Amino acid sequence: MRGLSVALVAPLSDADATVQSMEDASPAKWHLAHTTWFFETFVLRDFVAGYHRFDERFPFLFNSYYEAEGKRHSRARRGMVTRPTLDEVLAYRAHVDAGIVAALPRLPHEARELVRLGCHHEEQHQELLLTDILHLMSENPLEPAVWPGARKVPVEMPGPVGWIEHGGGVVEIGHDDPHFAFDSEGPRHKSLLTPHAIADRTVTNGEWAAFIADGGYAEPRHWLSDGWAWVKAEGITAPLYWEQHDGVWTRFGLDGRRAIDPAAPVTHVSLYEADAYATWAGARLPTEFEWEAAAASHDADGGNQLDTAGPVEPRPSLGGPAFFGDVWEWTGSAFRPYPGFRAIEGAVGEYNGKFMSGQFVLRGGSCATPRGHARASYRNFFYPHQRWQFTGVRLAKDL
Amino acid sequence: MRGLSVALVAPLSDADATVQSMEDASPAKWHLAHTTWFFETFVLRDFVAGYHRFDERFPFLFNSYYEAEGKRHSRARRGMVTRPTLDEVLAYRAHVDAGIVAALPRLPHEARELVRLGCHHEEQHQELLLTDILHLMSENPLEPAVWPGARKVPVEMPGPVGWIEHGGGVVEIGHDDPHFAFDSEGPRHKSLLTPHAIADRTVTNGEWAAFIADGGYAEPRHWLSDGWAWVKAEGITAPLYWEQHDGVWTRFGLDGRRAIDPAAPVTHVSLYEADAYATWAGARLPTEFEWEAAAASHDADGGNQLDTAGPVEPRPSLGGPAFFGDVWEWTGSAFRPYPGFRAIEGAVGEYNGKFMSGQFVLRGGSCATPRGHARASYRNFFYPHQRWQFTGVRLAKDL
Amino acid sequence: MRGLSVALVAPLSDADATVQSMEDASPAKWHLAHTTWFFETFVLRDFVAGYHRFDERFPFLFNSYYEAEGKRHSRARRGMVTRPTLDEVLAYRAHVDAGIVAALPRLPHEARELVRLGCHHEEQHQELLLTDILHLMSENPLEPAVWPGARKVPVEMPGPVGWIEHGGGVVEIGHDDPHFAFDSEGPRHKSLLTPHAIADRTVTNGEWAAFIADGGYAEPRHWLSDGWAWVKAEGITAPLYWEQHDGVWTRFGLDGRRAIDPAAPVTHVSLYEADAYATWAGARLPTEFEWEAAAASHDADGGNQLDTAGPVEPRPSLGGPAFFGDVWEWTGSAFRPYPGFRAIEGAVGEYNGKFMSGQFVLRGGSCATPRGHARASYRNFFYPHQRWQFTGVRLAKDL
Amino acid sequence: MRGLSVALVAPLSDADATVQSMEDASPAKWHLAHTTWFFETFVLRDFVAGYHRFDERFPFLFNSYYEAEGKRHSRARRGMVTRPTLDEVLAYRAHVDAGIVAALPRLPHEARELVRLGCHHEEQHQELLLTDILHLMSENPLEPAVWPGARKVPVEMPGPVGWIEHGGGVVEIGHDDPHFAFDSEGPRHKSLLTPHAIADRTVTNGEWAAFIADGGYAEPRHWLSDGWAWVKAEGITAPLYWEQHDGVWTRFGLDGRRAIDPAAPVTHVSLYEADAYATWAGARLPTEFEWEAAAASHDADGGNQLDTAGPVEPRPSLGGPAFFGDVWEWTGSAFRPYPGFRAIEGAVGEYNGKFMSGQFVLRGGSCATPRGHARASYRNFFYPHQRWQFTGVRLAKDL
Repeated sequence: MRGLSVALVAPLSDADATVQSMEDASPAKWHLAHTTWFFETFVLRDFVAGYHRFDERFPFLFNSYYEAEGKRHSRARRGMVTRPTLDEVLAYRAHVDAGIVAALPRLPHEARELVRLGCHHEEQHQELLLTDILHLMSENPLEPAVWPGARKVPVEMPGPVGWIEHGGGVVEIGHDDPHFAFDSEGPRHKSLLTPHAIADRTVTNGEWAAFIADGGYAEPRHWLSDGWAWVKAEGITAPLYWEQHDGVWTRFGLDGRRAIDPAAPVTHVSLYEADAYATWAGARLPTEFEWEAAAASHDADGGNQLDTAGPVEPRPSLGGPAFFGDVWEWTGSAFRPYPGFRAIEGAVGEYNGKFMSGQFVLRGGSCATPRGHARASYRNFFYPHQRWQFTGVRLAKDL
Repeated sequence: MRGLSVALVAPLSDADATVQSMEDASPAKWHLAHTTWFFETFVLRDFVAGYHRFDERFPFLFNSYYEAEGKRHSRARRGMVTRPTLDEVLAYRAHVDAGIVAALPRLPHEARELVRLGCHHEEQHQELLLTDILHLMSENPLEPAVWPGARKVPVEMPGPVGWIEHGGGVVEIGHDDPHFAFDSEGPRHKSLLTPHAIADRTVTNGEWAAFIADGGYAEPRHWLSDGWAWVKAEGITAPLYWEQHDGVWTRFGLDGRRAIDPAAPVTHVSLYEADAYATWAGARLPTEFEWEAAAASHDADGGNQLDTAGPVEPRPSLGGPAFFGDVWEWTGSAFRPYPGFRAIEGAVGEYNGKFMSGQFVLRGGSCATPRGHARASYRNFFYPHQRWQFTGVRLAKDL
Repeated sequence: MRGLSVALVAPLSDADATVQSMEDASPAKWHLAHTTWFFETFVLRDFVAGYHRFDERFPFLFNSYYEAEGKRHSRARRGMVTRPTLDEVLAYRAHVDAGIVAALPRLPHEARELVRLGCHHEEQHQELLLTDILHLMSENPLEPAVWPGARKVPVEMPGPVGWIEHGGGVVEIGHDDPHFAFDSEGPRHKSLLTPHAIADRTVTNGEWAAFIADGGYAEPRHWLSDGWAWVKAEGITAPLYWEQHDGVWTRFGLDGRRAIDPAAPVTHVSLYEADAYATWAGARLPTEFEWEAAAASHDADGGNQLDTAGPVEPRPSLGGPAFFGDVWEWTGSAFRPYPGFRAIEGAVGEYNGKFMSGQFVLRGGSCATPRGHARASYRNFFYPHQRWQFTGVRLAKDL
Repeated sequence: MRGLSVALVAPLSDADATVQSMEDASPAKWHLAHTTWFFETFVLRDFVAGYHRFDERFPFLFNSYYEAEGKRHSRARRGMVTRPTLDEVLAYRAHVDAGIVAALPRLPHEARELVRLGCHHEEQHQELLLTDILHLMSENPLEPAVWPGARKVPVEMPGPVGWIEHGGGVVEIGHDDPHFAFDSEGPRHKSLLTPHAIADRTVTNGEWAAFIADGGYAEPRHWLSDGWAWVKAEGITAPLYWEQHDGVWTRFGLDGRRAIDPAAPVTHVSLYEADAYATWAGARLPTEFEWEAAAASHDADGGNQLDTAGPVEPRPSLGGPAFFGDVWEWTGSAFRPYPGFRAIEGAVGEYNGKFMSGQFVLRGGSCATPRGHARASYRNFFYPHQRWQFTGVRLAKDL
């Protein structure tokens, strides 16, 4: 797991790894160091007697948002930290890795659980690493490719959406098996669904182009009020990274700028766009409970997910219903606690609970999600205007 | 109903009725005219042949947010409209009232439904009239009283909170009787509750003062992340309109500035503050479904609600469980559509659906809600930082 | 003098007199009260034993910027003060007028000088009253006229600009006669001019329309860098209050919206626009010293200035060189102190000196300047982007 | 000259050279490339037949503000350009240097003048390189030193200020000798001075600490109105880079954080601070004409200026009157054109003229000014709130 993070930054220069392209994103170097700080702080500092920090000044720089862990550098100024260099951060990683490896045999259960949490935490940052570096490169007028792109084999177009029907009734939602899960995925509880149908695939680039061509971004009736205000204020006319050149829609990706693939899932759309599309299409977004009920019987480790460093992107899905990989799917559910949810005591308890206002749940995992990280119960969450993640849309409708 | 609006502005000068104190609020004159425009447009224009508008320029000024009704004056600039004067707006009201009264006997059912909708719509604006004028007066360093205050009779303090337990299970939620309701209150549907308890009264000013004294506004661990950012950015240290003078907490109200009544429900708190208080108290906010299940058996027309123009404010509740009046109660539920919700076609369909992102549901009605307007199924909604309404807090907890 | 202020607000309602349309502007009521506060504070309070303030709360409301006079209401929130009403402010004026009249015979010289200063101070606010109410009405989509307009007699167009040449050399600049002047107009001192010519009239609306038609607002080379940034950020394409309807340029004035008069001086232009026009025209703005040297021999009480309340506006000037009235003329001189300038001790000393950064000098007086207020040495000053005053342009060139 | 630029960035990593710390500053890499673009564009492109640009995409990236040279990258986003790398930019420099060296023997006079302008232009950017990299390092919580600092030899304190008197009269101002000067330094012309005295040295850190200790930053009467607003809005309490640790004032410099040297000239103060200090001291700032008259007889190549790459900073001046080096001295003169000034035709003509609003003139050169770049007639200019340059204060007074 730790090796993948290093592999992901292999194509980056020290400068690439240092710059912060917007407040939502963090420098690659910061991701590498912050995930390391997590292990150093909650495992080595707390459970290994006599451990000396690699650098006493790093906690101030690399704490993200744990109020209980003291003062920290302003999120908006993370890109000012040209030093330590990328090489020094990699040395920091090696130092902490060696410390963990040496300590592991003797760590108590509680600490081993924190190591496990640290691994899942770092997997989340691996996805952010990819999306943040993509955003940075998109801000460079030269639009550099991070990796060369694979040659595209022309593919068959996916057929029309099929609808998976559900007759309603009580379902079990949330995590309950012995494997790892984040606190917000539980407690497992019953939820009552109404009769509905959910699409067997996500919306494609080609379908999205039709939405644009039909004036989708110009007709307020499709949009949530906040979404319409966002469209007007930001001048939104297409998904993030899309540009029209000589009548052809292109997108920017980790392999540079290319024509969109009409067969592939649309991505880099906000909840506002997802909701407007669904309204235009005479449908709606699924709730996170409908989604989980439908996805529970599918293989969470299947589909297009992150295996090795490279120019990941959503790919056309042609082999029947798939619920994992390619794009995170916006649901119509606000990110709120499940019945009986209670934040863990202590600093680690700041993990998810305090973000439970203003954000929407996304489900399923994307092409940038490390394979093995996704679960049917997994709840990702972002604000409704955010779209620099690999976010997409699955439709649902009432029966 | 129409007379109450006019009574509410009786103490206001033309200037009082014209100024807009913040973008969230509207001038009193605008409320009077906008509610009238609603009747004029959707009833007289659409159903009364030969009707001539009172003034062809008013739709531009007094449309609120109906995109389908064409261009409209910027919300932020409503306070610039010194003309028409308050007297002219009152004449506009009389003109439209006369038109409606004359037309009523011959109006088709659809139009009569719109008249009914217009009445409920205006009742909503009556509450806003009171809260907006209170906000305006609070911005005047002289802090004028709108009405003289009634002499306070010292009251008994309410006892400790009692907890109403619910064993969980399926309940029916939403509107279904033949009486009026807004579209967002339905469809009526089943919801599955988990075992919980809900407080039999709301949090008092005295209890809130204890929260402040315990450093509630200075300890990030109580707060949602967005809430803590809001506290820091805005310098929030107490409910809106509270000030400490010589160690005594005072509040500004429609009768001017006075000492807080420790026995009365706290009001003018945001969802962020409500949530932080609940966390501090070892409890949580109820969901809107828990609230509705508990409130359904209570009299929605009882309690401290708006009957006549005057200096309304929350009053101590001493007579057993009450769920209506005094303060709108923040729930932990995001304002999202019920299963099967579908917006009505046409301009009136913009009524509620498009606001279903980013806002939280409040329940119960307040001292400024016209009596008769509240229902157990009624869903009010505001953004989590807003607090110029009469908003308060009821606690809940898991069992 | 005091009567003219009251006459100027005669057409205003209480609401008209209360609203603040932008931070640069103040409510009419505020102007009436602030000028009164000046007399009350610096004369009655300081020189009349036993004087009781009309209202002890008014100094907080009506001090403008005198730091030495204590805390004061935020400039940006002046429009929140719906009470006191316009009538109460007029009563305040009457109270203070009576106090001054009663005290005048016994006032010491220093106090009489302050009365004189107060009169000149109020004349400045009379001009602001007119420009601020014009701005307020322009923000109302109904564009009400404050006064009915006079019928326009078609006029002859002014001929081409004539150039008044000056061979250069030392001139005397600044105030030195026994009549009143503001501190910034002195000390009188020598200034060395280079050979130049100054136009014998200001630029007309017709000439400005030619500048627009020639793409003047779209060509960055004409503009100061800060000016071009302002044009782009604000979307500026014409003078303030100009709109094109069916190909005809119109302007909004105190008599409502009308077609521009091509023969009249252009007004409501910023320094940036004035400078860009001059560059386009192959000329430059005069320095304030060149202007004063040219204007010194003309009658400062002549021309189109404010005599009585009404819809003042710049009028075509056909009778030979005129330097006073119609429009304030932007000079190319930054507002900085003259050699030997020293601010007066005490609160009144805050009058002009502290504004000597970032602003440009304007000369000559306008159609809204009370007749008798202008002088050849008079230095008005505004920021280079401001244009809600009656500001215009006179060209100059090097010889 | 070109070698010094490269030497200045020798201690920088690729990341150090890439990040932009604020909109006023530019990345080091950008300075290196922009100065090269100047030579490539105005000399090689325009005068060398068959020249091929090093990279056709660079003009978009490295044009600064020349509107006539086409579209360009947003100034605020210069820090997003992680590629080209520092090494690639150094290769760009080598390519253009080789082109210039090869072309030089055959270049026409006009092109040789542009080479000379390009050298002076690059010297300006060498100073910005140092001040921008200092600002970047100050934003890193680790406060890295760019160069190790030289050991401080304790020095004698400078004596009290001596005053150089001038009886007034006409002096010649501006450039007129055959050596290079920027357009804004001419035309040479006569200026009339009034009797005054000018200090024989600049204000020291020790004197500034006394100003702070006397409440200088807390007393509005010392400040220009815009300055006081800036102090309140930004929370200014000391020069930029000053911090008080255990009662000792320290400053951050190119050699890291150290205690201030009370004998050295104060630096990193704004015009607002300079003006407030002068007012507090009972003096004023000199005009740029007074300054030039006094400095004309001094050696512009003397004093503490930039000779080699290293941790430059102002040093105590003990050897009699000095007008050049150490710190740029704020004058009380707005940056406006001299009589007869006319911008050069063409893109190069955008050099200075368009910046002539809103800025103040500074004179004398600093420790970061390449020796040989300064002149008595040299007019530097910045906005009154800017202070990341090595800016200081010399007092003057009227006689």
